[in-house]
Amino acid sequence: MSTSFQPRTVIFDTDPGIDDAMALWMLARHPALDLRAITTVHGNAPVATTTRNALALVDFFGLDVPVAMGADDALLPRLQRFFPTQVHHEDGLGGGAPLLPPTSRRPDPRPAWQLICDEINAAPGEITLVAVAPLTNLALALRHDPGIAAKVREVVLMGGAFGLYGHGGNVTPVAEANIINDPEAADLVFTAPWPVVAVGLDVTQQVVMPESLLQSLSGRAGAVGDFFWEITRHYQRYYDGRDAIGGLYAHDASAVVYCVAPEAFERRSGPVRVALDGIARGQTIQDHLGLFDESPESPWRGCPAQQVCVGVDAQRVRDEFTRLFPPAGQASTS
Amino acid sequence: MSTSFQPRTVIFDTDPGIDDAMALWMLARHPALDLRAITTVHGNAPVATTTRNALALVDFFGLDVPVAMGADDALLPRLQRFFPTQVHHEDGLGGGAPLLPPTSRRPDPRPAWQLICDEINAAPGEITLVAVAPLTNLALALRHDPGIAAKVREVVLMGGAFGLYGHGGNVTPVAEANIINDPEAADLVFTAPWPVVAVGLDVTQQVVMPESLLQSLSGRAGAVGDFFWEITRHYQRYYDGRDAIGGLYAHDASAVVYCVAPEAFERRSGPVRVALDGIARGQTIQDHLGLFDESPESPWRGCPAQQVCVGVDAQRVRDEFTRLFPPAGQASTS
Repeated sequence: MSTSFQPRTVIFDTDPGIDDAMALWMLARHPALDLRAITTVHGNAPVATTTRNALALVDFFGLDVPVAMGADDALLPRLQRFFPTQVHHEDGLGGGAPLLPPTSRRPDPRPAWQLICDEINAAPGEITLVAVAPLTNLALALRHDPGIAAKVREVVLMGGAFGLYGHGGNVTPVAEANIINDPEAADLVFTAPWPVVAVGLDVTQQVVMPESLLQSLSGRAGAVGDFFWEITRHYQRYYDGRDAIGGLYAHDASAVVYCVAPEAFERRSGPVRVALDGIARGQTIQDHLGLFDESPESPWRGCPAQQVCVGVDAQRVRDEFTRLFPPAGQASTS
Repeated sequence: MSTSFQPRTVIFDTDPGIDDAMALWMLARHPALDLRAITTVHGNAPVATTTRNALALVDFFGLDVPVAMGADDALLPRLQRFFPTQVHHEDGLGGGAPLLPPTSRRPDPRPAWQLICDEINAAPGEITLVAVAPLTNLALALRHDPGIAAKVREVVLMGGAFGLYGHGGNVTPVAEANIINDPEAADLVFTAPWPVVAVGLDVTQQVVMPESLLQSLSGRAGAVGDFFWEITRHYQRYYDGRDAIGGLYAHDASAVVYCVAPEAFERRSGPVRVALDGIARGQTIQDHLGLFDESPESPWRGCPAQQVCVGVDAQRVRDEFTRLFPPAGQASTS
């Protein structure tokens, strides 16, 4: 019996990043996903570092897709940038970058925004943008060619914190890292006329990958399982010191799982704006109740309704990740 | 057997207001509370209206306490003020102001802030400020005499929204009415060195007084039960149209119940700031995780830890209210 199964075509905008590497593995191996290109950006580390990591991971995972280097700062240049070395280490991979085989792969000559525009225009209606980093590249692509908004299938982003389940932000009490690293870009992305799904901290902090799961990857999928075990030691120590979760949050992998199993996520609909000023800078605010609909001055008025994930089947997220690792001793099923 | 029971001395800062009237009834009748004075402020209606209502309610409830008129606008004067007539009606009492007997009572000659300072200085360590309106009077009192902060027993305020249980604000997606009506005053109150307990929408929206409860008050406590039934019709229609709760939220009464039964409220501790800028203006943000403690630029750094209510025994709140109404036909137990 043949089926007309069509994998979902994805451009991955990323700042690897430990959980970015895990998400990229899913994009490389999941049968329901077709990774078309990677774009890199500042975030967990400077863009030179995240690009170097992306190039090495492409080889390591046996991929052959272009990697285009993107922005090294937010739309509004910052006097002082902060990289979360306490989470991702100086090398962006928890100190595990030296474990990756050397690569001679070079970045695509185009800037990230250009690659994004080119791919979307070449395949209107087909591309899903999976963005798990500050949204600078997406905002630049929109600025250069606003017409892409109508040609994107969906923007699935890991970012934001919507104040559910008592969770707040992870950089300020209300702001999540990807958003506060470029709030102006995020506000442009949320208010553009394309369909956005936000997989924020409200749900990703419900998806814990326990140490036992990570340890069980050892010896599986060639050297990949061991690699993930190694690079998550630094990351887990950070979370164990802060939240004592006995593992790590699968932030970016959750966004990838959304692409293959949206039914594992409960969503709510409504326009989203990003606070740009004062102590709430970087907060994502959804007007899901339409409280402001009657006010002509409402910042939410006229903005497209976007989807915010408010619930998740955490076991399903873990299962979609671990199913990509064959039992120890078997060859990887690429 | 004699006990050394000492009722709690309260100054009530209010903008009656339908649920303000219910809270005032509790302050008038609860054996564990000793109402010392009332101060009025803008909010549910202009201060001329809320003062007129407060004076009439004092007579109607058989009280004999001073009523001092307070601010008619926020610390930062507004070009355009908005009164929630859809909630509290033009008369601030759901159209029920004409039901109150006429009064010859006149306001205290002092402005509200002066009365607050005088009472606190006259009884250091004794006064609890119960504030269920925009916090302008309290901020003005602090400005005129910062020394009062050390002499107040506790500030219990109904205000704010801390994003729990999926609730946001009731004026914007993140801002509650009492706070957004004077965010600068609220930020001064939360950051002053006195102990503040915030009873916000997170808990008051869990305390529904159903229509059946309100109807059961008819004929009880003299004309008071009938009065509450009448003035809540407009209020209930508003909530039924919006949230379909079949009753009303006991916002202000919840703050009074906190004073007599703090054990009915789950709290969390941490500094609170109020967003003053942009789309989050009026949002109350508590850094209860101390995420920012290491950053010298943190807006929360060095601010006193305040208490935010994050859970409530709603039945207890209802019981503390209804126990003040003797069964129909019996005299009021004042």
